[in-house]
Amino acid sequence: MAVYTDISEDDLKHFLEQYDVGELTSYKGIAEGVENTNFLLHTTKDPLILTLYEKRVEKSDLPFFLGLKQHLFANGLSCPLPLPRHDGELLGELSQRPAALISFLEGMWLRKPEAKHCREVGKALAAMHLAGEGFELKRPNALSVEGWKVLWDKSEARADEVEAGLQQEIRADIDFLAANWPKDLPAGVIHADLFQDNVFFLGDELSGLIDFYFACNDLLAYDVSICLNAWCFEKDGSYNVTKGKALLEGYQSVRPMSGAELDALPLLARGSALRFFLTRLYDWLTTPEGALVVKKDPLEYLGKLRFHRSIENYAEYGLVGR
Amino acid sequence: MAVYTDISEDDLKHFLEQYDVGELTSYKGIAEGVENTNFLLHTTKDPLILTLYEKRVEKSDLPFFLGLKQHLFANGLSCPLPLPRHDGELLGELSQRPAALISFLEGMWLRKPEAKHCREVGKALAAMHLAGEGFELKRPNALSVEGWKVLWDKSEARADEVEAGLQQEIRADIDFLAANWPKDLPAGVIHADLFQDNVFFLGDELSGLIDFYFACNDLLAYDVSICLNAWCFEKDGSYNVTKGKALLEGYQSVRPMSGAELDALPLLARGSALRFFLTRLYDWLTTPEGALVVKKDPLEYLGKLRFHRSIENYAEYGLVGR
Repeated sequence: MAVYTDISEDDLKHFLEQYDVGELTSYKGIAEGVENTNFLLHTTKDPLILTLYEKRVEKSDLPFFLGLKQHLFANGLSCPLPLPRHDGELLGELSQRPAALISFLEGMWLRKPEAKHCREVGKALAAMHLAGEGFELKRPNALSVEGWKVLWDKSEARADEVEAGLQQEIRADIDFLAANWPKDLPAGVIHADLFQDNVFFLGDELSGLIDFYFACNDLLAYDVSICLNAWCFEKDGSYNVTKGKALLEGYQSVRPMSGAELDALPLLARGSALRFFLTRLYDWLTTPEGALVVKKDPLEYLGKLRFHRSIENYAEYGLVGR
Repeated sequence: MAVYTDISEDDLKHFLEQYDVGELTSYKGIAEGVENTNFLLHTTKDPLILTLYEKRVEKSDLPFFLGLKQHLFANGLSCPLPLPRHDGELLGELSQRPAALISFLEGMWLRKPEAKHCREVGKALAAMHLAGEGFELKRPNALSVEGWKVLWDKSEARADEVEAGLQQEIRADIDFLAANWPKDLPAGVIHADLFQDNVFFLGDELSGLIDFYFACNDLLAYDVSICLNAWCFEKDGSYNVTKGKALLEGYQSVRPMSGAELDALPLLARGSALRFFLTRLYDWLTTPEGALVVKKDPLEYLGKLRFHRSIENYAEYGLVGR
């Protein structure tokens, strides 16, 4: 939610000369993207997004992220499309940072999604999984089981500051999940961060997916479990079975999950709840005093983790029968 | 540079129903405006700015600010135009804040203005002064001589922290300016904050003025002196006489200044340098440790203040003859 880097009109003009776009008529820094600086450009043709990649993004990952959007778009998914320069490159440089010009996707993210929207999200996630087939670049998921251990090593000693007994509880979860994590389920390119602010709607119609900067190769059903966590709980922490049912049915209508995937869902959901709990816990413990405005966040995902730990059968998520 | 308040898509939809605008297709918080939260809206018709007025703006001032823009626009000035609701009101409410919908002005502010741009700024400032004639609402300038005394009382005791001897030096300035401040010069509506980021250009052509949230009734030549300070000094603190000449000639070509106005210019410029020095000094002294990123700012205006103190005749600003 910040503009880290300003750009001068001269530098921007030179940058844009490398592309086939209309005349620039305005550019505004927008409050989107935690990792990068984004400008919304108006031109005499179409609006565009200009992204400057700040230090938190690995430069070596950029060909994966930009190429993936191009691949998904070419395979029919509605998502922002990186524009090629005259020389064919997707990546340039501006204000000493790697920079890309990307098509602007109209639509709004929903602050208060309903079950019908969850159904659309499920469908779009499945469509993304299918559209990702054949993409040749690979990026391992740095935030899967091995990554959790690294994060946990940095936080474990102080975990009981958040809640007494947490150190023991989370250690047991990590051990259990590491020992039982499925290996033979269908894998492919996953979004890995499909929260509300990354799904745009026009009215009740889903207009596209954005922000592929956590995308990686992993189990497809794991991505479904991330969406269950992100979309199907209410603010009071309760699981909304109507939303869960809609999301899963939407997904299945485009890409039916196998029996093994469905059976693994409670374990995967427990894992994805742990993943967001761990990153939020780490941020919570390392954010300086005085800036502690997100203190509730790790607890939100702790609640979800405990919920999934109690699930015995995927049917409890609202999905009836195979 | 912040988005203080988020809005839900439902609240925004209801808000927009009160206006005659196209269908909403996107809204993004933009990093502009220090006092308010601004969203850039795309619709099936024209882009728009939605402003939520935060606590730093006096609600009782809003009719002046919004009415002024309407008046200036109606009198031919290019500036953002507040849109009336179906009931004729310019002000509504959204997310518990006063809110207005305002036309979007294409253009970019210049990070590196040249003399030719300063000439256009001078012309536009004069055009604004003429267009402001006949506007019926009044707003006194809270940041003129009396306001400086209030600010100074809060900072004086600690002024020597910034530079030794400053307490005595600034006290003498305030006393001198209070005793000699002109009273009989032409007055009207002034912008009072026409810095680079409030003037938009398309190429070398000035496309409009924005941000009238410091506008008030005061001496017109005082507004000119603010622009001299904001536009005609280089980053190293030196006065650029070519830019000063261009700005003043541009202004004079639209609204010739009287001899009395010209003679008062050094004093007025000293006053406007003091005004920005004092607000920056106050912010500098009251901004918490650790957030001290603007430490240089009061010194920038101290340098300008000293420069104007040394001016004996307005001709030194670059303007030849009367």
